[in-house]
Amino acid sequence: MNQAVIHSGCGAEPGLISADQAMQMMLDYVQPLTAETLPLSQALNRYAAEDIHSAINLPIFSQSAVDGYAVCADQQIQPDARFELIGEIRAGQAADAQLQPGQAIRIFTGAEIPAGTSAVARQEIVQAEACGIVLTEALQPHADIRGMGEEVAAGQLLAYAGQKLNVGAIAALSMAGIQQVRVFRYPKIAVVITGDEVTETVEDLSSGQIFDANGPLIQAWFQAQNQAVDMMHVQDSEQAAVDLFHSLKHQYDVILTTGGVSVGDYDFVRPAALKTGFEQIFWKVKQKPGKPILFAQHKGSDQRACYLLGLPGNPGAVYIGMQLYAAVLLNALQGKKQLPEWFSAVMTHDLKADARERFLRMSASFDQGLLKLASLAKQQSHMLSNLMQANCIVRVPAGQPVQAGQVLQGLFIQN
Amino acid sequence: MNQAVIHSGCGAEPGLISADQAMQMMLDYVQPLTAETLPLSQALNRYAAEDIHSAINLPIFSQSAVDGYAVCADQQIQPDARFELIGEIRAGQAADAQLQPGQAIRIFTGAEIPAGTSAVARQEIVQAEACGIVLTEALQPHADIRGMGEEVAAGQLLAYAGQKLNVGAIAALSMAGIQQVRVFRYPKIAVVITGDEVTETVEDLSSGQIFDANGPLIQAWFQAQNQAVDMMHVQDSEQAAVDLFHSLKHQYDVILTTGGVSVGDYDFVRPAALKTGFEQIFWKVKQKPGKPILFAQHKGSDQRACYLLGLPGNPGAVYIGMQLYAAVLLNALQGKKQLPEWFSAVMTHDLKADARERFLRMSASFDQGLLKLASLAKQQSHMLSNLMQANCIVRVPAGQPVQAGQVLQGLFIQN
Repeated sequence: MNQAVIHSGCGAEPGLISADQAMQMMLDYVQPLTAETLPLSQALNRYAAEDIHSAINLPIFSQSAVDGYAVCADQQIQPDARFELIGEIRAGQAADAQLQPGQAIRIFTGAEIPAGTSAVARQEIVQAEACGIVLTEALQPHADIRGMGEEVAAGQLLAYAGQKLNVGAIAALSMAGIQQVRVFRYPKIAVVITGDEVTETVEDLSSGQIFDANGPLIQAWFQAQNQAVDMMHVQDSEQAAVDLFHSLKHQYDVILTTGGVSVGDYDFVRPAALKTGFEQIFWKVKQKPGKPILFAQHKGSDQRACYLLGLPGNPGAVYIGMQLYAAVLLNALQGKKQLPEWFSAVMTHDLKADARERFLRMSASFDQGLLKLASLAKQQSHMLSNLMQANCIVRVPAGQPVQAGQVLQGLFIQN
Repeated sequence: MNQAVIHSGCGAEPGLISADQAMQMMLDYVQPLTAETLPLSQALNRYAAEDIHSAINLPIFSQSAVDGYAVCADQQIQPDARFELIGEIRAGQAADAQLQPGQAIRIFTGAEIPAGTSAVARQEIVQAEACGIVLTEALQPHADIRGMGEEVAAGQLLAYAGQKLNVGAIAALSMAGIQQVRVFRYPKIAVVITGDEVTETVEDLSSGQIFDANGPLIQAWFQAQNQAVDMMHVQDSEQAAVDLFHSLKHQYDVILTTGGVSVGDYDFVRPAALKTGFEQIFWKVKQKPGKPILFAQHKGSDQRACYLLGLPGNPGAVYIGMQLYAAVLLNALQGKKQLPEWFSAVMTHDLKADARERFLRMSASFDQGLLKLASLAKQQSHMLSNLMQANCIVRVPAGQPVQAGQVLQGLFIQN
């Protein structure tokens, strides 16, 4: 804990850690939560806690790729080849027939290929005759048969431990007969909004007060991820925060606070966290906005950890804090120990130097495969309205100006 | 309706429309749903039905940008300037004081600036004295004051009609005092899975049957968007489909089907739709996978429309159908009449020509700002496992090979 840092200046104090260092410290300190078994239908966007292997071959049996006729021949199949029609197999039916040379069976896309089949003739190259069919084109051996296991063999690795189960993964696992999965538990999260100045309704707005943006921002952020969190508000008093943290630390995996985390006379989040037994992992990051970020952990007698992520009170800083630190923390708790996956893109104009690394809201657009960045006005940490136009946040290195054409890193935000 | 097209071949039949034409027809035919008023907290990812203007100035009052001292001086403020300290204003408190030249007041970030303030001196450049403060640096007029309305003026346009209210928008609107919004109603959607061959559990799996991927895929797709849909299954019988469509068309805005939409003997979705009074808008698109796509509308006596989007039964085609057609349809119903917003990217290898436009699952990665594409194996329409590796779908133009270095369009998929 760096006691030498005692004020919140506007510049970069010596000894502050970088955003990359801070996020790496989160990855180093955070222990993944335990795993749980869920029905696959409830596992969207969770992280696999173990490798997942296919329960079956895919296709599960050899099947027709088209609507047509399964035919059996003991030699190459030429145009004008004739076959006796002996039945029909629909998708979903068992293929009980055993085709003999010269026989054909009506078959539909996805239906099981009967024993003895040489190839499937799609219906477009088949003409009906009195007691059978005749082909209008030659047929290659195995034509239009999807072979059993040609996509996936039973037992093959489908998803690795730590992989996020997105929509495509849920579908692919369903198809492979996976009914339930071991995934990391989603953290139980308490969101604590500080600040006597914030109010939610016009009726409650008195002189000197402002509307709360941080609560709605964080709530929507979790809502977009389909996750419920418990929202609460604490008065600007150290004792109130001590009492609250004391009760929360045993019930939650994460306490996420906004505001009160700098060194002002009413910045009581850090003192209250230290008084309730949290150990500081880092405090203050050389970035703009969002310098006074606190990350701390509490370990109970059972070694169960509760993490406290203290974001600043300015909503611009909260937004960046959620996209970077909250995202890294939640992923790490679910076994995905990885820094943000930045895109690279080219600036279309110059930017002045700043002593701290900046995270700017920008508009990115593709031009012949090249991602081009334009910064937006109104970037100050208390401003949010440019999120109406932004589609990404871009990191601008500290200490030197950026020139048009320079490559920077960024993250897309959901539009 | 093109009655000349009577079979489902593998190639591109003359007269088929392109994917762009098909999606444009959706935009042309679809009428937006009515609007509704929602609390802002329930409006995430909805589309604004009218322009939204700020209820207030932002900042709502002039406020301090830092923890420090509001000072009043009738001349330039030099180092060693001294001020009498007359009180304190915390964030959330009304600024009742009236500063006189030579006076200062303790003030905190976000607190209301009292009348008479010349500038705010941040606490780092202030030293305490017996009965006041002394500055260690000169101070510019208006330093560290956030002026009332400097970000947004009361009445200013914040969001335009048709804009999607993402996380950033919800936060920005909250901050501007917006409590409720007019948004387009989200469509009521019935998802109808066809196919006697699909089953959900191992216990039910008999010979010739497969696990259902389409139901889980579509359910997860809507779940990822926080939307509930009604899932149902219909037997492979035209009468069962007629009965079902008949009851659904008055209750739902959209019927989304999978399977049974080609021209096989058991492809009953289109005949059943036509028999229940749906008018075909298009059927079959010159694309791969997913050629036999049906889009139809039913207008009740009250002119209320129900749209039927019939996707093929192969899960690869369903995935593409959801990303393209379902997305365009749902957006259009919510007032956003816009084709997909493609990225552009550069292929890293050659691709063979195909008679139809293809939508391939690929892996995209940034290299110095340039987005580079690599195709994945196992692209056939009945295969899904490569969605575990894919992060985008890419459109490959019909009729000509693609060479390494060529620019193609694509869409990111959620990872």
